[in-house]
Amino acid sequence: MAHIDLGVDEKEFPGITGPMRFRPETAKPLNELAEALLRGPSPLSPGERELIAAYVSGLNECRFCCGSHSAFAAAQLDGGMHLVDQVHADVDAAPVPAKLRALLRIAGTVREDGRKVTAAMVQAARDEGATDVEIHDTVLIAAAFCMYNRYVDGLGTRPPEDPQRYAESARRIVEVGYVG
Amino acid sequence: MAHIDLGVDEKEFPGITGPMRFRPETAKPLNELAEALLRGPSPLSPGERELIAAYVSGLNECRFCCGSHSAFAAAQLDGGMHLVDQVHADVDAAPVPAKLRALLRIAGTVREDGRKVTAAMVQAARDEGATDVEIHDTVLIAAAFCMYNRYVDGLGTRPPEDPQRYAESARRIVEVGYVG
Repeated sequence: MAHIDLGVDEKEFPGITGPMRFRPETAKPLNELAEALLRGPSPLSPGERELIAAYVSGLNECRFCCGSHSAFAAAQLDGGMHLVDQVHADVDAAPVPAKLRALLRIAGTVREDGRKVTAAMVQAARDEGATDVEIHDTVLIAAAFCMYNRYVDGLGTRPPEDPQRYAESARRIVEVGYVG
Repeated sequence: MAHIDLGVDEKEFPGITGPMRFRPETAKPLNELAEALLRGPSPLSPGERELIAAYVSGLNECRFCCGSHSAFAAAQLDGGMHLVDQVHADVDAAPVPAKLRALLRIAGTVREDGRKVTAAMVQAARDEGATDVEIHDTVLIAAAFCMYNRYVDGLGTRPPEDPQRYAESARRIVEVGYVG
């Protein structure tokens, strides 16, 4: 049971979906932010952006967000869930392009504390070809998942009992997005 | 200098205002979220909600967000900046109503890690009269400022050189809000 009465069957509406039904006034900008960040125009692909979201959610140990965005990343990256699992296990060893690895390192640092991002970390990403927009989007995705993760866990919501639900959600996100 | 070229005079556009000019696609939902969270319909007053935002930003040591939302809270609370300063100094001793104190404690815990919010903390707020919507809004405001703070600091933006700017912003926020 969540900490508050969400007014829904929590098995049917796991994780963030319960609070979003409970408070549509805030759900609207939260979904629009996810759409802009993860699916809107950006030099980073939706798969790369979902991987950053999944990576940060994994570091924050938010089961629902990590399960969801890992599935969303896997559905949109050539390496699929195997690649996503490798990033969760060891970002330094995972077979991702050097630019994406440098951006994931920035994301992990933002997750810890924004003030810990250094000019050298940003330069390392730039040296691998990252643009200002890519660095911006990485920082904001990492910051945003520090919000979504705390929202989901701070209200004591539960992840779905059947992990298959994440793959089902991934099909819907890829098809219609966060505001469809 | 920020970590990326924001394309603006950073003295003129301090803190979050630079990144928001740089990336209007994400600024739109970020501002709409702030408006819904801090000024939209809620049983918590705008002043109480700004105080929660200021308190979390203070704990995260985000100078720009703490300065801004402290001024926005002060402009909308009877106790003014003296009360806001007392909350920053010692939330347990500050002369705020018991319900608001219990909500601030939840906010401080969400800021640390959403999973650390306990049923007992939520019950303590409920015992002081907090409703489910008030608890929800407190958790989401605290979570959201873990995002805004990281966005501002992760990009290496600077606070305004003249702290008077916060009071000027407060007048605009109280008058037209975040999406005016």
